[in-house]
Amino acid sequence: MTFMTGVSAFPITPASADGKVDTAALRTLLGRLLAAKVDSIGLLGSTGSYPYLTREERRRAIEVAVDATGGTTPLLVGVGALRTDDAVRLAQDAKAAGATAGLLAPVSYTPLNDDEVFEHFAAVARASQLPLCIYDNPGTTHFTFGPALVGRISHLAGVVAVKSPAPDAGAVATHLAELRCAVPAGFSVGFSVDLNAVEALLAGGDAWYSVAAGLFPQICMQIVQAVRDKDATEARRLNARLQPLWELFREFSSLRVVYAAADLLDICRAVPPRPILPLAEPARKKVATTIRNLGLS
Amino acid sequence: MTFMTGVSAFPITPASADGKVDTAALRTLLGRLLAAKVDSIGLLGSTGSYPYLTREERRRAIEVAVDATGGTTPLLVGVGALRTDDAVRLAQDAKAAGATAGLLAPVSYTPLNDDEVFEHFAAVARASQLPLCIYDNPGTTHFTFGPALVGRISHLAGVVAVKSPAPDAGAVATHLAELRCAVPAGFSVGFSVDLNAVEALLAGGDAWYSVAAGLFPQICMQIVQAVRDKDATEARRLNARLQPLWELFREFSSLRVVYAAADLLDICRAVPPRPILPLAEPARKKVATTIRNLGLS
Repeated sequence: MTFMTGVSAFPITPASADGKVDTAALRTLLGRLLAAKVDSIGLLGSTGSYPYLTREERRRAIEVAVDATGGTTPLLVGVGALRTDDAVRLAQDAKAAGATAGLLAPVSYTPLNDDEVFEHFAAVARASQLPLCIYDNPGTTHFTFGPALVGRISHLAGVVAVKSPAPDAGAVATHLAELRCAVPAGFSVGFSVDLNAVEALLAGGDAWYSVAAGLFPQICMQIVQAVRDKDATEARRLNARLQPLWELFREFSSLRVVYAAADLLDICRAVPPRPILPLAEPARKKVATTIRNLGLS
Repeated sequence: MTFMTGVSAFPITPASADGKVDTAALRTLLGRLLAAKVDSIGLLGSTGSYPYLTREERRRAIEVAVDATGGTTPLLVGVGALRTDDAVRLAQDAKAAGATAGLLAPVSYTPLNDDEVFEHFAAVARASQLPLCIYDNPGTTHFTFGPALVGRISHLAGVVAVKSPAPDAGAVATHLAELRCAVPAGFSVGFSVDLNAVEALLAGGDAWYSVAAGLFPQICMQIVQAVRDKDATEARRLNARLQPLWELFREFSSLRVVYAAADLLDICRAVPPRPILPLAEPARKKVATTIRNLGLS
């Protein structure tokens, strides 16, 4: 399935202060991704602030995206929720609205153990019949997947991919090899964490789940094209150019940076859901300088 | 205000598999706490699974508790939510229903910074006019409060207490002193983490926010009485007796243990909200043995 290779672009979900999705702004963002021919779209990911939106607003966002893609570009949709029954309903909604697959993170408040996460995935996969990508994002869920648990879940019917946070260059090959040993043949092993993603792709990762590509899809597609062309030098050169952006992500978080950048570039006027605050002026100036110096638009 | 001293007992919130609060079972649990004359009740705390319950169910639980206490026992209510506007509404609901104070934790998905948490507290305190206790629970929120931030928030109008996780005996006096320096005179500094709470009380902490007391209030009241009587030896002797319970909490988590114990003792039949699973049989047997050996009922 093509949605599990190449660049999966994760846009923000522009919304009002009271959590209503701004469908016009979302269409603008999606239009940029479709124009750049990204390999897939990761709607309502962590960058898309899915846990901060109601079921109804999440459904509205999916409907806009299904309409915008017109079935041409695979659409992954975040279906995570604290409660298993809520995650089931969200996955059913995504399936009914025409999403290609669901991104399921083990959202937690009470820390979960492996058996609980396994049963959570089993319940959502079974009840929704939506293909699922294991969304491993310990920075937000505070749950850490070991390769053994990824392996267990990967053998559930309907689970088709894993999105794993890429460790740094020195560790990514081993990490990928451990995951490959744990999952069935043909199972997609892809990576998030933009600043480490190029090395993960060069090591043989199937997909790059990218925050940067949600706003700047062209440069990310160029990097993946270089990897596809087996031109590691060019992929690394393009990635090295983006180092100032990765530094901003590290300093201020990718989510806050892409909100500021979208605003600075007049792409859309949106702020993150409170309590998350827009970047303060000094940080915002750094973002402005960086995107100007990099020629990003 | 008396609700910020002594034992604050945190019961589970019995609910059906689809998240409807079992008001009869909740009344049973509350009746045990009132009979033991706990100093306050911490309804809808982390042990009360508040983030897993809808606004409507949380309101129902508060109404039952207000009715059960009849105003005799201070009632603290968890009002935390991912979104600031949701936390405001929950605090307004709690105030309208007659809660004494709100427990506000910085529930997070996207990791929050200090300014964001400060503004979150300021917004909820201002808009609800409900007295607030800073609910510092890094094990669930993954946000770490430094003394400086506790100090900043403690000076907001309407913020009256902090519930801090007690470090072990070697560190608690320093931790308490740091908090005391940061907060205004008369501000209540209390502690959670049952296994470390007695030393925190002996060091001068104002309150013990207790999971164990939510199910076994009498023994916890005896411990606090010994502290009030300045009988450290007796307080430590009683606490040492409970060591096997604290070990269970450490091994299986306090929440899962109290659910199992409530069921084993025929106090109420409830299971945690999925994805959290009831303890498996070997662990359940350990709980049964321990509560029998300790004579808990």
